[in-house]
Amino acid sequence: MKTLQSFKARTGEPFGAPLLAHTPEQVDSTVEAASQAFASWQASSGVARGSLLRALATAIEGDREALVSIADQETALGPVRLNGELDRTAFQLRRFADMAERGVAFESVDDPAVAGAPPVGHPAMVLQRVPLGPVAMFSASNFPFAFSVLGGDTASALAAGCSVVIKAHTAHLVLSNRMLGLIQKVLEAEHLPKGLIGMLQGGGSDVGVRLVAHPLIAAGAFTGSTRGGAVLQAVANARPRPIPFYGELGSINPVVALPGILQTKGAELATLLAGSINQGCGQFCTSPGVIVLLNDPASDAFVTQLTTALKALQPHAMLTPGIRQAFDNGVAHVAASGVKVLLQEAGNTEAPRPFLAQTDAVNFIVKSELREEVFGPASLIVRAASVAEALQVLEAVGGSLTVTLWGAEQETDDTRAFVRGAMNIAGRVLFAGVPTGVAVSSAQQHGGPWPSSTQPMTTSVGDTAINRFLRPVCIQDAPSWLIKRNGQPC
Amino acid sequence: MKTLQSFKARTGEPFGAPLLAHTPEQVDSTVEAASQAFASWQASSGVARGSLLRALATAIEGDREALVSIADQETALGPVRLNGELDRTAFQLRRFADMAERGVAFESVDDPAVAGAPPVGHPAMVLQRVPLGPVAMFSASNFPFAFSVLGGDTASALAAGCSVVIKAHTAHLVLSNRMLGLIQKVLEAEHLPKGLIGMLQGGGSDVGVRLVAHPLIAAGAFTGSTRGGAVLQAVANARPRPIPFYGELGSINPVVALPGILQTKGAELATLLAGSINQGCGQFCTSPGVIVLLNDPASDAFVTQLTTALKALQPHAMLTPGIRQAFDNGVAHVAASGVKVLLQEAGNTEAPRPFLAQTDAVNFIVKSELREEVFGPASLIVRAASVAEALQVLEAVGGSLTVTLWGAEQETDDTRAFVRGAMNIAGRVLFAGVPTGVAVSSAQQHGGPWPSSTQPMTTSVGDTAINRFLRPVCIQDAPSWLIKRNGQPC
Repeated sequence: MKTLQSFKARTGEPFGAPLLAHTPEQVDSTVEAASQAFASWQASSGVARGSLLRALATAIEGDREALVSIADQETALGPVRLNGELDRTAFQLRRFADMAERGVAFESVDDPAVAGAPPVGHPAMVLQRVPLGPVAMFSASNFPFAFSVLGGDTASALAAGCSVVIKAHTAHLVLSNRMLGLIQKVLEAEHLPKGLIGMLQGGGSDVGVRLVAHPLIAAGAFTGSTRGGAVLQAVANARPRPIPFYGELGSINPVVALPGILQTKGAELATLLAGSINQGCGQFCTSPGVIVLLNDPASDAFVTQLTTALKALQPHAMLTPGIRQAFDNGVAHVAASGVKVLLQEAGNTEAPRPFLAQTDAVNFIVKSELREEVFGPASLIVRAASVAEALQVLEAVGGSLTVTLWGAEQETDDTRAFVRGAMNIAGRVLFAGVPTGVAVSSAQQHGGPWPSSTQPMTTSVGDTAINRFLRPVCIQDAPSWLIKRNGQPC
Repeated sequence: MKTLQSFKARTGEPFGAPLLAHTPEQVDSTVEAASQAFASWQASSGVARGSLLRALATAIEGDREALVSIADQETALGPVRLNGELDRTAFQLRRFADMAERGVAFESVDDPAVAGAPPVGHPAMVLQRVPLGPVAMFSASNFPFAFSVLGGDTASALAAGCSVVIKAHTAHLVLSNRMLGLIQKVLEAEHLPKGLIGMLQGGGSDVGVRLVAHPLIAAGAFTGSTRGGAVLQAVANARPRPIPFYGELGSINPVVALPGILQTKGAELATLLAGSINQGCGQFCTSPGVIVLLNDPASDAFVTQLTTALKALQPHAMLTPGIRQAFDNGVAHVAASGVKVLLQEAGNTEAPRPFLAQTDAVNFIVKSELREEVFGPASLIVRAASVAEALQVLEAVGGSLTVTLWGAEQETDDTRAFVRGAMNIAGRVLFAGVPTGVAVSSAQQHGGPWPSSTQPMTTSVGDTAINRFLRPVCIQDAPSWLIKRNGQPC
């Protein structure tokens, strides 16, 4: 039996007792239990789904002190952030409970019969939705609550009527297992099968690969690196019966700051942006990794302001030694790619220092390595000689969770072109503030073209996240007993 | 230069002059023209989109006589069917014109700012949609109008604001080129760039592969075989930047006929089903390829009735010699797979004869080759010893465009289980009639789990087909000039 060990993120010391990695047989039996649980859960009422989701929210709030303390040891994200993240996780569990109770999963499109020959005439049709089946859910390293065991993927899948098999992240195994204990108590209290929410843990990729490849798994949901996500996507594609794989992968989140706004608000925006780059030690999928500036004295001043603001900040420890190593390598790689380094100081063992560099648009467009995400407190300023060149920079980025556009308050040919360029590559376009911080809300879109996500039409945050787990089915000439169910599954 | 030749489907004689296959350079230049056309078309109004779609509908109606005559020569589908298909194609072009004019592509979700700290408080957000970009559209062999050059994929992509590059099907090259001539006249009259709707032709897969792999292509849409679709899906996945690929592939469309209804209406249903199996020489993606019957005297009688009804029918010529060869091979393969052959007669050079065989559920479940689509007038009866076994048969099918359930008028544990089993594997579940014939309508769902489609949450027929080409984008704290556009792109 392989064992796994959790570590304290700040010191690297072992945390908690060694844990057993799950065997291939355990992967299979967990999926089988999820498949059995799905058979009844898919026919559950919105009230039952709401009740489960609310009980889960209450359970994590009730164990807040221990959960935050464990999470802080394992991730070094700090109690303020972690308490906020736990709040958000409970909030989104209850938001999906609301949606389940309102019957969002059971909404249908009624399309009554039309007399006559086709193409005008047609039989009576109703478009309903059915849950996909057991979902393989991969926890993220950087959000131990909101994108992990009981995060948005699990909440939306349960609300849709799917069962879930969670792959715990090795960066917070003790926390994940404590969450599983809470889950199992809730499932028992709700008289639901244990298999409805299963959890697996493993060191390498073998557990995850076996999980996604399992014939009874109907979909995958993943938040993590482009590399890891691409591996699992390939597994999902290579199955005899491919399944939807919702991967939220790497994103470099360009911030375009136009000279006009920098003239009046440059200092303020530099402080705001430095805070966003440094937030959570840069370990956010929406961390601003590229700053696009036109050649202008206001841009020059902003570069100085940003460098100064960033130099004053001290990131906290990173999530794992592996993530720290990847950050140090990524920064070294960028620094060696024909850029001008503006801020690079050696970090200590505990925490890195922020990194800032500058390059021109041509170098950025030519060198694809400069467009790869450096996970951590690093950002690259790209200077464009013209609006057209700045638009080419966005085009070269190709896919991003967010683009931020500062200074587009007036409608001009240029601002219209920037809006178009931004919307063509991103899932969310911001006109104020910073991209870090993703509201759980009805209009949220957390997912854009590759590599920011594998299914750019979907979101992993916000109300429409539930759509990922519901497949449309048209019922034609359905009997009255079925119509009377109003989309409630059999 | 490679040349291509069209053939008369009924005789195999050459039809029309040889045509030039497009070179790799021509593929690239056609895509580049589509990309340039997209830059303006993505910002077009709903009125402009509607105007184009209506003009295209009028153009094909105005050339009806020649189009149907050419299509009949190239496909042998007959003038009645082809006139009906042309009607449907014009109908769906106008239906998407209606949707464009109603502003469906510009609909947005307004999510006003909420004061306070997260997770409750959030900035002002609006969820809009943007067109994906140039779409690679692959014509189908079996629907020379409705799923080809100006079929539903092209209509819905144009309505969404995308440009289109069509890969003509080699089974109807002369027709495709005549359609292209009509298109180019309409584009000119509408003052639109020629590149908005481009077309390519090639013999093997090289043109199609280069098209899907082209960096400027943003999505693929395909109707055809599982094998061909899987090849192009793999190309889409293997791109440095993978893109959505909407493939409507193979489907065996189980028909479950319960003993109760067979007792009272067996003869009538046998005639109806035989007609559906034989329709269009079985060259329908919704052709009923599997008939699931419980062991019952009414089922035995139905088998005899169906065999007799099918024996009386004479399919017309198939689309191409290759398709005919594949049908003969497929039938021979099924006949040699431990089934009882009920109807197998040698066809003549022009047309095949219908094929019908019977097997038990266990053989069907064990032998995956019995679950592969045989494209043509062939069907396999599967006898189940119990409801549970019949449900296992559906589960083994796994993914299908349709399931038809005859005899579920009363709500019982069994009919509920059949409804659940059917909805779990199909995009459309019918309770009367036959699966052939797909209404262009608001509740249509033409797409189900693999292998029936590559993206089971989407449909290639019906109003929601437009969603395949529109990507959600959230605009956060957007300036008032942008909000005032009400989702109309910049």
